[in-house]
Amino acid sequence: MLTSLQNPTVKQLRKLKQSKERRKQGALLLEGTHLIEAAGEAGYPLEVLCYTEDWQARYGEICARAIALSAQTELVSPEILKSIASTVTPDGVVAIAPQRTAWEEAASQPKDQVSLGVILETLQDPGNLGTIIRTAAAAGSDGLWLSPDSVDMNSPKVLRASAGQWFRLPMAKVDVAQQAAKLRENGVQVIATTATADLDYWQLDLTPPTVFLMGNEGAGLSAALMDCASGAVKIPVMPGVESLNVAVSTALLLYEARRQRESGFGYAQPPGYVFEG
Amino acid sequence: MLTSLQNPTVKQLRKLKQSKERRKQGALLLEGTHLIEAAGEAGYPLEVLCYTEDWQARYGEICARAIALSAQTELVSPEILKSIASTVTPDGVVAIAPQRTAWEEAASQPKDQVSLGVILETLQDPGNLGTIIRTAAAAGSDGLWLSPDSVDMNSPKVLRASAGQWFRLPMAKVDVAQQAAKLRENGVQVIATTATADLDYWQLDLTPPTVFLMGNEGAGLSAALMDCASGAVKIPVMPGVESLNVAVSTALLLYEARRQRESGFGYAQPPGYVFEG
Repeated sequence: MLTSLQNPTVKQLRKLKQSKERRKQGALLLEGTHLIEAAGEAGYPLEVLCYTEDWQARYGEICARAIALSAQTELVSPEILKSIASTVTPDGVVAIAPQRTAWEEAASQPKDQVSLGVILETLQDPGNLGTIIRTAAAAGSDGLWLSPDSVDMNSPKVLRASAGQWFRLPMAKVDVAQQAAKLRENGVQVIATTATADLDYWQLDLTPPTVFLMGNEGAGLSAALMDCASGAVKIPVMPGVESLNVAVSTALLLYEARRQRESGFGYAQPPGYVFEG
Repeated sequence: MLTSLQNPTVKQLRKLKQSKERRKQGALLLEGTHLIEAAGEAGYPLEVLCYTEDWQARYGEICARAIALSAQTELVSPEILKSIASTVTPDGVVAIAPQRTAWEEAASQPKDQVSLGVILETLQDPGNLGTIIRTAAAAGSDGLWLSPDSVDMNSPKVLRASAGQWFRLPMAKVDVAQQAAKLRENGVQVIATTATADLDYWQLDLTPPTVFLMGNEGAGLSAALMDCASGAVKIPVMPGVESLNVAVSTALLLYEARRQRESGFGYAQPPGYVFEG
């Protein structure tokens, strides 16, 4: 068992509390039972797993699965665990994992069969990204693309807010305009969300393959990306309300698609609509 | 113009950076143009308004409205403003306002005419509460009730996440079980959200007056409050996903009510449903 703060492995792990150091080493810091469990369920590889005796006794099954995925495992004293963790009261386990570059590359290949997805432009807030990942996974989205100037998807805050779905949802940083074009070539409708659209989001048929374009928290969608869309919808808000949080907007759109597809009750035709069937 | 850190008003204001001191004095710290503008639009009373010359020059109209609502106004130097503000780069204005106890009491009176509302039980996260306030205002909710053990609705994080809607939405901390009973007596359907419900949320008629019961981030709704409901719905999630963020769930429910009411396309009857009209 590691008990000395002077141990070279411990020293190395403590360095990784700094985000700069993690970026340099392409490393991810996973803290707490919930994230280790989610990583285990997704079969995500771990480089170093550190845990206390108490934690192993309490979470034997999660521990065994994590050990099987780890290149190196270390039993450590509670004091050492505390010195490695960035949270004030760590619950007995910390792991180092590789950042998801490899996954990003796999996911960034254009897919022929996207049924539901999201493209995020210049998203800034890690809590918003994490919540969108969680919601997209829950709604049955196939994946998520981010513009390169968006928040770091390997941020611990993103992981936490995703409630473990970070390990499961395919996502990639890509040229989002190119991605939108590729999707349209594959027959996917690409829908912009903007306050100036004519249609409410429940007035568009979302049963065909659909990807939504979501803009920056303050500025919304750029004109350039808006031009890549095959259609646009708005989410109506009461007078005096400027806009909705971007994670909330994304949830409403993804779940309206799910509602239309599962309920058997489709979209509401806009006023003046004439059925041409 | 106030320029000295030794000035008694400045000393007093600097104390209010501590949440303990604010609670003791029943005071609220408002920072930044956006919040001052929202307070002004809502006609919310201000006790002390502090601003720099530059800010007044840049936001003349917002400044004039805020001055009209303030019991005391102080022109201060940029250094003094920085010493009062809790943010690192304040944008030229800070105000002290009363906490919303009076509003709480007015709002906690049972209403005869609630069309759409939310009851939150043991909500813990200020960001979630702020996002729910923003979304409830956007969806057209009449108000929001919180259990007494929920997060402090006067927290600066709640205000920030609400994007100004904090000043406009009626809300109150009340005995939520009693509130649910009163609403039902007034003919409002009270709908619990729980993963074990039979109906998906789009399978229930939400066009009558409706209030949703939303539970704690970790534990969900208590059995005691669940017993107060007249019906229950679930939000379907893909296998392997535990749950949604509570602000996201609340948004989906409120906007499904709005969709059913505005689109003219109602709820989807569950399988096996027989129309008895």
